[in-house]
Amino acid sequence: MENPILHLNKIFESRIRLGVMSILMVNDAVNFNDLKQMLELTDGNLASHLSTLEESGYLKVHKGFIGRKTNTTYSITKAGEKAFKNHLLALENMIKSVK
Amino acid sequence: MENPILHLNKIFESRIRLGVMSILMVNDAVNFNDLKQMLELTDGNLASHLSTLEESGYLKVHKGFIGRKTNTTYSITKAGEKAFKNHLLALENMIKSVK
Repeated sequence: MENPILHLNKIFESRIRLGVMSILMVNDAVNFNDLKQMLELTDGNLASHLSTLEESGYLKVHKGFIGRKTNTTYSITKAGEKAFKNHLLALENMIKSVK
Repeated sequence: MENPILHLNKIFESRIRLGVMSILMVNDAVNFNDLKQMLELTDGNLASHLSTLEESGYLKVHKGFIGRKTNTTYSITKAGEKAFKNHLLALENMIKSVK
């Protein structure tokens, strides 16, 4: 039996980072509060996972304004999309190997 | 969009625990060294994850002998099988939501 976790990406080990990437795969840009609500998280918890993903080059941050209020949005990078697709493929293969 | 990680089980967040459960789903009992080789891990790393899974009630330990040498094997419990299947289902739904 091949090592079932060989191709799994350690960055996507956390459920929260899995959730963030899933949302950003199907949305062009999502702001902090919407991510926080969808994933039912605290500010601090979400912020730390977002910076891990940013440091990995898997998402980019855009600081804009709505009126005079800051509006920070997040979107997936090409590298992030590629890495996440590979991770999902490895998960699918692992799931198949168990059925 | 529903919270994509709502039904993911925190115990299976670690790739190593994912790997252990995948192997035990398709093998009745596997000994420590075979798990260690298949998952390419150190003793300490594997041992800590196995005890987390045991404390969760998801796997059981059987201490036997081969000749005079101890042979510790691990197998999945009914609760482990059920929990892992639910986790894989949640992963599959998350993957589908991204396609």
